[in-house]
Amino acid sequence: AATATTLKGQPLDRPALDSMLRRRMFYTPSFEIYGGVAGLYDYGPPGCSLQANIVDVWRKHFVLEEDMLEVDCSVLTPHEVLKTSGHVDKFADWMCKDPKNGEIIRADHFVEEILENRLKGDKEARGQKIEEKEEDPKKKKRKAKGTLEAVKLDDAVVKEYEETLARIDNYNGEELGELIKKYDLKNPATGVQPSPPVAFNLMFQTAIGPSSNLPGYLRPETAQGQFLNFSKLLEFNQGQMPFASASIGRSYRNEISPRAGLLRVREFLMAEIEHFVDPQGGKKHPRFTEVKDVELVLLNRETQLAGQTKVEKVSIGQAVANGTVDNETLGYFLARIHLFLQKIGVDQSKIRFRQHMANEMAHYAADCWDAELFTSYGWVECVGCADRSAYDLSVHAKRTGAPLIVREHRPKPLVVEEWQVDLNKKKFGPHFKKDGKTVEAAVEATTQEQRETLAKDLGEKGSITLEVAGVGDGKVEIPKDLITIEKRTRVEHVREYTPNVIEPSFGIGRILYALMEHNFWTRASEGGDEARGVLSFPPTVAPTKVLIVPLSSNEKFRPICYKLSQKLRKVGISSRIDDSSATIGKRYSRNDELGTPLGITVDFQTVQDSTITLRDRDSTKQVRADEDKIIAAIQSVANGSKQWKDIEAELPIFEGQEVEIATR
Amino acid sequence: AATATTLKGQPLDRPALDSMLRRRMFYTPSFEIYGGVAGLYDYGPPGCSLQANIVDVWRKHFVLEEDMLEVDCSVLTPHEVLKTSGHVDKFADWMCKDPKNGEIIRADHFVEEILENRLKGDKEARGQKIEEKEEDPKKKKRKAKGTLEAVKLDDAVVKEYEETLARIDNYNGEELGELIKKYDLKNPATGVQPSPPVAFNLMFQTAIGPSSNLPGYLRPETAQGQFLNFSKLLEFNQGQMPFASASIGRSYRNEISPRAGLLRVREFLMAEIEHFVDPQGGKKHPRFTEVKDVELVLLNRETQLAGQTKVEKVSIGQAVANGTVDNETLGYFLARIHLFLQKIGVDQSKIRFRQHMANEMAHYAADCWDAELFTSYGWVECVGCADRSAYDLSVHAKRTGAPLIVREHRPKPLVVEEWQVDLNKKKFGPHFKKDGKTVEAAVEATTQEQRETLAKDLGEKGSITLEVAGVGDGKVEIPKDLITIEKRTRVEHVREYTPNVIEPSFGIGRILYALMEHNFWTRASEGGDEARGVLSFPPTVAPTKVLIVPLSSNEKFRPICYKLSQKLRKVGISSRIDDSSATIGKRYSRNDELGTPLGITVDFQTVQDSTITLRDRDSTKQVRADEDKIIAAIQSVANGSKQWKDIEAELPIFEGQEVEIATR
Repeated sequence: AATATTLKGQPLDRPALDSMLRRRMFYTPSFEIYGGVAGLYDYGPPGCSLQANIVDVWRKHFVLEEDMLEVDCSVLTPHEVLKTSGHVDKFADWMCKDPKNGEIIRADHFVEEILENRLKGDKEARGQKIEEKEEDPKKKKRKAKGTLEAVKLDDAVVKEYEETLARIDNYNGEELGELIKKYDLKNPATGVQPSPPVAFNLMFQTAIGPSSNLPGYLRPETAQGQFLNFSKLLEFNQGQMPFASASIGRSYRNEISPRAGLLRVREFLMAEIEHFVDPQGGKKHPRFTEVKDVELVLLNRETQLAGQTKVEKVSIGQAVANGTVDNETLGYFLARIHLFLQKIGVDQSKIRFRQHMANEMAHYAADCWDAELFTSYGWVECVGCADRSAYDLSVHAKRTGAPLIVREHRPKPLVVEEWQVDLNKKKFGPHFKKDGKTVEAAVEATTQEQRETLAKDLGEKGSITLEVAGVGDGKVEIPKDLITIEKRTRVEHVREYTPNVIEPSFGIGRILYALMEHNFWTRASEGGDEARGVLSFPPTVAPTKVLIVPLSSNEKFRPICYKLSQKLRKVGISSRIDDSSATIGKRYSRNDELGTPLGITVDFQTVQDSTITLRDRDSTKQVRADEDKIIAAIQSVANGSKQWKDIEAELPIFEGQEVEIATR
Repeated sequence: AATATTLKGQPLDRPALDSMLRRRMFYTPSFEIYGGVAGLYDYGPPGCSLQANIVDVWRKHFVLEEDMLEVDCSVLTPHEVLKTSGHVDKFADWMCKDPKNGEIIRADHFVEEILENRLKGDKEARGQKIEEKEEDPKKKKRKAKGTLEAVKLDDAVVKEYEETLARIDNYNGEELGELIKKYDLKNPATGVQPSPPVAFNLMFQTAIGPSSNLPGYLRPETAQGQFLNFSKLLEFNQGQMPFASASIGRSYRNEISPRAGLLRVREFLMAEIEHFVDPQGGKKHPRFTEVKDVELVLLNRETQLAGQTKVEKVSIGQAVANGTVDNETLGYFLARIHLFLQKIGVDQSKIRFRQHMANEMAHYAADCWDAELFTSYGWVECVGCADRSAYDLSVHAKRTGAPLIVREHRPKPLVVEEWQVDLNKKKFGPHFKKDGKTVEAAVEATTQEQRETLAKDLGEKGSITLEVAGVGDGKVEIPKDLITIEKRTRVEHVREYTPNVIEPSFGIGRILYALMEHNFWTRASEGGDEARGVLSFPPTVAPTKVLIVPLSSNEKFRPICYKLSQKLRKVGISSRIDDSSATIGKRYSRNDELGTPLGITVDFQTVQDSTITLRDRDSTKQVRADEDKIIAAIQSVANGSKQWKDIEAELPIFEGQEVEIATR
């Protein structure tokens, strides 16, 4: 396992980053003055804005670019819907209880942590350097999961542990229970083995309506609302296939013991796409050629089952061609996901796509690849891309009788030659009396082959004999005046099928957190005092685009700043004036921490000649020009058409102030 | 009560509008294939887009324009928070039960409906025309709330009923119960009186965590998250007051028996502002002068208590000056709310601001005005603007000990002359032994006046005598070696206060529904067949800005349409290509129903000279020009800088096609 690094390759000091993110109110534990609730967080102004910008890019990249049908469905969901979808029975994690102190433990995490700790102890005993893995400060506060003991293990045991860990997501509850027994895994807090794992359903339950007679849940995904509306969406799309719906909204999972900050939470924003595709014809995608050369880092299922984590970097065209990725549509979305992550500023060296193992897949999935991002918590699943096949539409159609299908006019009618049976109803009923229905069902159930033989019998013998369990002695004779069997031609003009679904599903909060880690770095101040944090977000997602700072509290600066902010707002650029009494250097530092890419200084020269300086967050370099030129430069950087180096090449460099800034 | 009308003053045919809105998938009942759940709706693509555009205008109009601090907080809320805020005890409606069939009935609605019905019956008996009030089709499906009986009432009774109805929101449960008895109100479904009203809490309950030991609710408003973060937000704002936070997100209310479509739902999007202001100095607002001439239609508390509904149209400046609206900050937001509603296209003649009556106000409110919009359901509360005073911050601070206050450096220190008491602790304790604490508390509790007298006594008599209940005979003597009382000067540099909160709170779904009614009208087709629906949304909020239609399925048109849509996307304009096989007229009709303001036709001339026609939804007029000019025209209409009449004046009118369109 590698060590997490900052944007500039420095070892990542997570506690320092975390404290900065909280100080700048990117996020904060919900209900903190009440002691907080595990797994619930609020976003403050910069986090809220960062989230809105990520969602905005997502909507443009996916919904608008591909004319997806966006819907906004209810979170409250009645029991019956989630019973049918399988969530009531299967949407669960494995939970153990410590018999001594009653602590509730998530089984897979428990096995993982203790085995990892033993491997560390082994390394220490062998005198190897232990890779520093930053600990979650919260985890420390709880109770340390076992003090590290330097105990050397057999080489075979080390290998076994490592292979177990590579497969950790593939074990079911029983298997996890066996591992706990086999390796004698004890809760370090009490020194006893926890109870065998039991399934714990992750959905929050509630009751809808005043008489509490309608049990319901908070949705665990946005997908179901999209499936239930399938027929209406198809009609809205004027019957054309394939098409995709999309939804951005909150979902809820009652995690057993959430830790890991923003990564494992109980309430989170999801963005999900349901792409409906004809299962016939290999799930081709018309725009696949546009992305076929995009290179992805893949970790496939076989590698993991072999207990390894070796990845390969291949173009998606190649991966689909050689069968690593099942089909073009799945491949198309993996590439589009990669391009999206790139666009918002995720570190390209910290993305991999991992295929799910069989037991790990959700109950509805036929295949699934996760986009994982590397963070100080290790590789974190941030986007899932599952092939849900026809599972959901089929179960809901079966349960409700709603036709969640596509009816497609066949360009060339399908001509079917087949044996058909007609009964003479007037005579058939009276002949068989109470057994009529049973005999009729038996006739209808005959296969084409049987009918061919029966037709021959009917012609030759004047009657047929059928086995019908429960009627008479189990054999029934039907004379020819009751039945006709003929070969006829049937013409089918319409084809009916249930579409398959490819589902890219984004956890916005996890992406947001990874983005913060990937864009964080520290800069030594020129004065040599402590390192200062910088968040180098791309301008498109940065919470605020421009900081406006007056040089001092001189009253001449205020109207200029205000006018500038109005002008920027008019061209759609968010800015913030900082006219606090802190030094310019401190104010810029604060905004480097907030990830604001550009800064304007208004000084005495501005009052005289209307020129202003523009500062780049990442290089701290400045240019100076008149207002219109600076605003044009800001626009081009904010919309991504230019980069700072272009601005430096176009406008005069300004060096007066930065010295002053850096030394304060 | 007036009758609801369309944008063009036609009587509003709600069933026709409703059926169009569902057919075009603006909204649809959630889980409809499972029979639906009352009070839950999904938005389809146009509804979803309309909602996003309204939210976008809201964010620009409020959050960006006034530098509000937007936050995004958890929906799941632990019991203790909502216990403290008063919601656990007081956030309830009055509910009755029919003893015969078990039906659960909302008490105020029950009284309202039956009295209204009796008044209608009276009018009929008097031979007056009954104003048509559109019935909710759902209501009909349930059971009619009493067939209309033409029974003449005494004039005095009519007056009494009318006054009761004008005050209906002011009754508590007991009073509603008395009305039911007094007027002998019976459930028409069973012919019996329902049981006396009991309070039903409207919050959805759930349990957080695996051991179900943390009861929680889905938030009924977004406000609490903002209050709990007050200290952090103040710090983020660098300590500067006043400031506002804002939040856009879902809230939940378990309505007793939701009807009235999108107007009374159990899950809804809110946009709330919490403006924190110093209670001293009359709650002035620095930007009040900018809005003082905005005219509002007001219905004040006194008028309603007198059993009337007479409104007055006054400038907000005047309303604040004469005390109808309590203060500038409240007045400022009422005006800003009005301007927002105007901007998104709410009919100006269908807005009024109604002041809450005392019993009607939420438990936290000191004053409240609702922006009500007139619809076919009558006047509907769409925005509340409450003065929550210091209620919420105070109760949370008291419960948690968190300092939810402002500490303000006094420009001029406050100098206080006061009598101070010092005890000689070494001697005091041993002297009074077990009564020490009680006596000390009694000393500390003395007023300034008492201390002045006591100081004199101490000087003259060498001791003081205090009444201390429960110690000795209730009188305690304290000798002067145990106590000093002196007049001293205390200098206060910092002022501490709990801010007051003005809260404009928007129900986005209700605004969205009213907007659809206000912008709907029907146009007779030239052919004379049935009237066609049009939704004349302003371009800023219209779900899609441009429809692109190729004249026919000729293959030369497709790449031109695609290129146009790419170009529009690049300048940030959403478009949709309709290349279905329907006639151009039908395709335009469909898009009039979707509220798309502009349409482009690509025809054979386009292939030759790259000119395209642009059609206006409202007038159906067309212009023709080259692509660049048309795109510029679209941009200016979409961003609101020009109107269609400007485009008509600038570009050549095109008349060829519309004839064909209108007659098909």
